[in-house]
Amino acid sequence: MASVNTKVYLLDCGSMEIDGHMMYWMNGPSGPIRFPVYGVLIDHRDGKFLFDTGFDKGFIDSVMPGNAIQSERQTIPGQLDCVGLRPTDITHVINSHYHVDHVGGNKFCTCATTVCHRRELEAASNPKVYEKRGYADMSFAPGLRRCDDGQNYADDIYTPKIETLTGDQEIAKGVHLFETPGHTPGHYSLMVELAGRRPMLFCGDACYTSRSLEENIISGAHVDVAQSFDSLDRLRDLAEKYDAEIFYSHDPEAWKHWQLAPGYYS
Amino acid sequence: MASVNTKVYLLDCGSMEIDGHMMYWMNGPSGPIRFPVYGVLIDHRDGKFLFDTGFDKGFIDSVMPGNAIQSERQTIPGQLDCVGLRPTDITHVINSHYHVDHVGGNKFCTCATTVCHRRELEAASNPKVYEKRGYADMSFAPGLRRCDDGQNYADDIYTPKIETLTGDQEIAKGVHLFETPGHTPGHYSLMVELAGRRPMLFCGDACYTSRSLEENIISGAHVDVAQSFDSLDRLRDLAEKYDAEIFYSHDPEAWKHWQLAPGYYS
Repeated sequence: MASVNTKVYLLDCGSMEIDGHMMYWMNGPSGPIRFPVYGVLIDHRDGKFLFDTGFDKGFIDSVMPGNAIQSERQTIPGQLDCVGLRPTDITHVINSHYHVDHVGGNKFCTCATTVCHRRELEAASNPKVYEKRGYADMSFAPGLRRCDDGQNYADDIYTPKIETLTGDQEIAKGVHLFETPGHTPGHYSLMVELAGRRPMLFCGDACYTSRSLEENIISGAHVDVAQSFDSLDRLRDLAEKYDAEIFYSHDPEAWKHWQLAPGYYS
Repeated sequence: MASVNTKVYLLDCGSMEIDGHMMYWMNGPSGPIRFPVYGVLIDHRDGKFLFDTGFDKGFIDSVMPGNAIQSERQTIPGQLDCVGLRPTDITHVINSHYHVDHVGGNKFCTCATTVCHRRELEAASNPKVYEKRGYADMSFAPGLRRCDDGQNYADDIYTPKIETLTGDQEIAKGVHLFETPGHTPGHYSLMVELAGRRPMLFCGDACYTSRSLEENIISGAHVDVAQSFDSLDRLRDLAEKYDAEIFYSHDPEAWKHWQLAPGYYS
């Protein structure tokens, strides 16, 4: 059941580029594709939940110069400001996963409890060689891991309270997390039930774009191929079961048609 | 121990193109890279072993027009002819795996026993959705699987005798198969000991190029990421243990320096 007064805001966090073969595994095309990055604010009677927080432009500039485009207004503080909130108003930050383009704004939400899948925290804490690049921005939990990237993270600027989950969970009335691993070990997708419209199913990086779903193409960035395809199937099943509208994580075309903050869905 | 009279011939089977992100997973660069394709003839006192057989140009032309370059001399019959053999002289065809660029010449070796890993045969017989493209050329065993690609394979043109293995195996004196899965479920690499030189370690697609090994980069085409990295590690360990020279599967630079048939290693 939906919570009557729940509102969902899409927070524009700028854009990045990725090669077509990383966007569409085994399919391409070659060459860069610019894609949107966003967070989801759920204004709910039980709290102000933020699902994913975009990237930190300074961090991306340091590792991929020229890749990231983000104005001040497209930061988490900037986006929250445009709906009349401050980062300290956020009660819970939920991360689909801990890749660099999903965690960059966590550090501003210093009063929030950070929620993630247990396996995601384990993976980011002790990444395999092929996971290190994705988990390179550890500013969401500076004390969690000494990075070998030469950066000094100050342990004392931010010590989040982290709560880990496993399995599917309804974390507040009408706010559901569904396990969709493969892109990373502990990936969660999010579904929000609303009073006045179809449920909104936010895929996270289990499904980048409408083409990914229609042509059954997983991300080139993945840790488990079989799980990734299973998660695509699961998203299809969930959308059908709940008659949910799918919101892809990085779809340049679909993005043009969505209501962005300060507008909202309710 | 090496078999005294063993000779190893590298059979030039032409070249194909792949995007840099498929050649070097998560690294690229973008755009096509042309790479050599070859087979390995082992003239051994116990038989004439052929490890991988390149691609069938007609087949590749039908699915990827303009990709494949192969002269008549670069077919398996053409290459065997240049060392004075016919395909029917081959006693054993061993496939590192059953991808299209490694099986195209199998069908000419109608007197050979076909040797592969048990899991490779299982995978090619009943491929997952993301394995079908790699296993698209089933002419190596026409009766094995009804393809859904619209092609009609004639069951009666060729019915190979297939022997499957598991685990590491010394299939003839000094001829070793080592399990190196990840690129495909049942991938084998090959090592041949020779009387007059260091052992030759043929990686198959567990390691495309010297860059793959040096920078620890797996193929963009894989079924298991963790296994693929473990297999790269294994190849390093094997090369050290046996003081073996590594022969990458698709290295445009290394290829220029190798002795090709009718020349040989012994």
